[in-house]
Amino acid sequence: MSKSYEALSSLLEKTMALQTSLILLEWDNETLAPPDAGSYTANVIGALSEEYYRVMTGEDMEKAIKNCEADDSLTEIEKAITAEAKEVREELVCIPSKEYRDNAQLVSESTRIWSKAKEDGDFDAFIPTLEKVVDYQKKFASYRSKEGRKLYDIMLDTYEKDFNMELLDQFFGELKEEIVPLLKEIKDHGRTIENGFLKGDYSEEKQRELAVFLAEYIGFDFNKGVLAVSAHPFTTNLHNHDVRITTHYSDRVDSSLFSVIHEAGHGLYEQGISDEITQTLVGQGASMGMHESQSRFFENIIGRSPAFWEPLYEKLVSFFPEQLKDVTREQFVDAINKVEPGLIRIEADELSYSLHILIRYEIEKMIVEENIDLKDLPKIWEDKYEEYLGICPDGPANGVLQDIHWSQGSFGYFPSYALGSAFGAQLYYHMKKEMDFEGLLRDGKVDVIREYLREHIHSYGKLKTSRQILKDTTGEDFTPKYYIQYLKEKYSALYQL
Amino acid sequence: MSKSYEALSSLLEKTMALQTSLILLEWDNETLAPPDAGSYTANVIGALSEEYYRVMTGEDMEKAIKNCEADDSLTEIEKAITAEAKEVREELVCIPSKEYRDNAQLVSESTRIWSKAKEDGDFDAFIPTLEKVVDYQKKFASYRSKEGRKLYDIMLDTYEKDFNMELLDQFFGELKEEIVPLLKEIKDHGRTIENGFLKGDYSEEKQRELAVFLAEYIGFDFNKGVLAVSAHPFTTNLHNHDVRITTHYSDRVDSSLFSVIHEAGHGLYEQGISDEITQTLVGQGASMGMHESQSRFFENIIGRSPAFWEPLYEKLVSFFPEQLKDVTREQFVDAINKVEPGLIRIEADELSYSLHILIRYEIEKMIVEENIDLKDLPKIWEDKYEEYLGICPDGPANGVLQDIHWSQGSFGYFPSYALGSAFGAQLYYHMKKEMDFEGLLRDGKVDVIREYLREHIHSYGKLKTSRQILKDTTGEDFTPKYYIQYLKEKYSALYQL
Repeated sequence: MSKSYEALSSLLEKTMALQTSLILLEWDNETLAPPDAGSYTANVIGALSEEYYRVMTGEDMEKAIKNCEADDSLTEIEKAITAEAKEVREELVCIPSKEYRDNAQLVSESTRIWSKAKEDGDFDAFIPTLEKVVDYQKKFASYRSKEGRKLYDIMLDTYEKDFNMELLDQFFGELKEEIVPLLKEIKDHGRTIENGFLKGDYSEEKQRELAVFLAEYIGFDFNKGVLAVSAHPFTTNLHNHDVRITTHYSDRVDSSLFSVIHEAGHGLYEQGISDEITQTLVGQGASMGMHESQSRFFENIIGRSPAFWEPLYEKLVSFFPEQLKDVTREQFVDAINKVEPGLIRIEADELSYSLHILIRYEIEKMIVEENIDLKDLPKIWEDKYEEYLGICPDGPANGVLQDIHWSQGSFGYFPSYALGSAFGAQLYYHMKKEMDFEGLLRDGKVDVIREYLREHIHSYGKLKTSRQILKDTTGEDFTPKYYIQYLKEKYSALYQL
Repeated sequence: MSKSYEALSSLLEKTMALQTSLILLEWDNETLAPPDAGSYTANVIGALSEEYYRVMTGEDMEKAIKNCEADDSLTEIEKAITAEAKEVREELVCIPSKEYRDNAQLVSESTRIWSKAKEDGDFDAFIPTLEKVVDYQKKFASYRSKEGRKLYDIMLDTYEKDFNMELLDQFFGELKEEIVPLLKEIKDHGRTIENGFLKGDYSEEKQRELAVFLAEYIGFDFNKGVLAVSAHPFTTNLHNHDVRITTHYSDRVDSSLFSVIHEAGHGLYEQGISDEITQTLVGQGASMGMHESQSRFFENIIGRSPAFWEPLYEKLVSFFPEQLKDVTREQFVDAINKVEPGLIRIEADELSYSLHILIRYEIEKMIVEENIDLKDLPKIWEDKYEEYLGICPDGPANGVLQDIHWSQGSFGYFPSYALGSAFGAQLYYHMKKEMDFEGLLRDGKVDVIREYLREHIHSYGKLKTSRQILKDTTGEDFTPKYYIQYLKEKYSALYQL
């Protein structure tokens, strides 16, 4: 290791440790911490964040990055880490420290205010806070803006590089054109699918055992990971040997079942990051979209496929012999794929899911680029749900207030969910050429599929962008066509259109 | 707040946040983290410890402390925090930073190696690691040594100020002189007490419910605390609004029952620290001994007393109606006080407990002051158990490997357990003069006792030393006489000697 890289590495080790602490505090807060701990623990979070900002934006860091840039002896990985450090630093350093702290404070308050407003179904109570959050996000984006780039493009860039509004307009345009009519056709002409048996007396203990079994079945390694319970399922990690997924249990057995496969999909990505780069700035998933591609790949393309359940269904029935005694495997697989446009994104079926994202994408553009009055959001939301999904929210709790993202200032995040599905479909059609995909699932050999993904995607971490990964793996640049093809083929067949 | 104190306070806020992160990482490691996470998480622990060391020993801190010392406008609490900061800094600044970090990393690994060695009953596998740990502890003590103080005295000082080997030799000498013959007399002439019913088919779920009930009964606040499971019960806290206790469940119902009361006793101390000083350097228990005085006070003086169970026994039976159906309250209380010299310290009865500590105290002196070969430890251990308790370990797992302390480098800690018992007895005899102690327990009014302890002990945190607390509360300096009186009175009566 060169002297110059050693200096940078030592500073980054400190920021990594601070970030890991913040991640653990957040995990702990979501899964275990006692109710009254909040404001005291916030002092700890505040002090750690401030220290992170100080080190990341400090002169030592600036000098260390410059020295590394001038050093020819760096390895490729060291160069990538240097570039990443430079980018992270530039994104922070343009924000005045007071505003950085104030925003962090605001966000921690605004998620609480949002949560209360959602509980009360009272969007008006959230408007003043949301306005402040939006203002900060716009201001921060404007600090980062170069050469007159649009603010929303800058926000999008945070979560998914190389996907600007121009590309996304086209992507979502194609989706809208194909999916809205398909949904309508299913509604008007599709056959009826029974899924009532998915709801019932499914004991939490058995669901938990099943969750562990399924996570292990797809390859989640419990020597390097844990499963816990939280209000909303999520995945986080301290490093590639400590990856944490959560789920929740309800009377809908498919809810925890697929949330576990989804989160374990995220988890496999993080466990698959190579040891060489874990605990460095490139030791995470390539992007939010690529992360979602993996979770949704396991949840939908694998987890909801008939082939996946061939070797597994009997096992599933052994967990719930009473509840599933009259249900055939075919009926079960139909049921978990039933199209049922609803109000809640995270409960959406695979087909209508993309429209939930489309709606959010269109509204975010209006908020950031058209400066609409936030008071109008509930109405805009309802109109779009009516238009695209044919249903109307019964109030803001199940409408505009349902997601936490805006309260956190995460504008530009939503598109990654749809992009992830599209990345996954593109990978899927390519992999079908490389291997007998369905045959492997039928033989219970998920490991072959997983190892392929690990080799081509997971192990690289952030050493490649998602577009590079797609090109290197499939030989093609990103294209939405496979996603549309996948949805059309799957649902036309399922609904016998 | 004065300018000079503000500067110190801001530095201490950072060290507090780092320490809190380290505490959370340790908690997580003991209760949840996946098996393979260790060496990677150790990097994080190493980096945080290094940063803590850097800030604590830095010039800014030195200057801030000096300025505060010269500042007349400081409040009493600010003065105490300044003095504590100075002391903590002086203990650290003499240790080279690399050694400090290496030791932190070593300790986090060595607890895992110890745990594996214990599982395998293989002391040899632990020797190389233990040697390193001992070397570091001796080296660190030697750095701190002033005026030729003995190394073990310096280690003792870390956990209990004003109690050196001279005082402890006397203390343990008196104990040995009184307790070893008393134990023998009970064995030879005491009546037989039946306690077989304490072992049996006690379901883990019911034990857990009972644990929560008992912790709440003595006043542990679950809005500010949690209960989890770990191999070795312990208590830790992020601040006074986030206090965490653990237990373990076995087929001995009294094992988890009293470990929970014990840990909740620690927890009450931390929850009782006043808001004004939590998250500061004086916002912890006065000393390890005073901490143990509280846990053992609740476990033994309260929890094993006949009066405590008068209002509670029926409730206990409702948890285990089958297992306890033929057991009277009197039989139960006799059983939980049965003297049964055994191999395991944490399962020891109240009387022989102090001899377990005596043995460790004597062995620690040999390790630190006589540099014995660690290979000989199992033999030394066995001989002492034979001599003082009349029993011989069946191997290192139940012998020299049973406690986590040495793997953590906590030499000098064990005596606090015995001192804690002695502090507790001294407080008890005083409180009996101030209130109808047994009457309160009989009326289910543990809260009156708890509030007394909170007022006189808990709320002060480290603003007083344990000896000051004893003097201020009981009007007497520390004396072991009440502890010996307590044990003799209690066990002579119980065994009808």
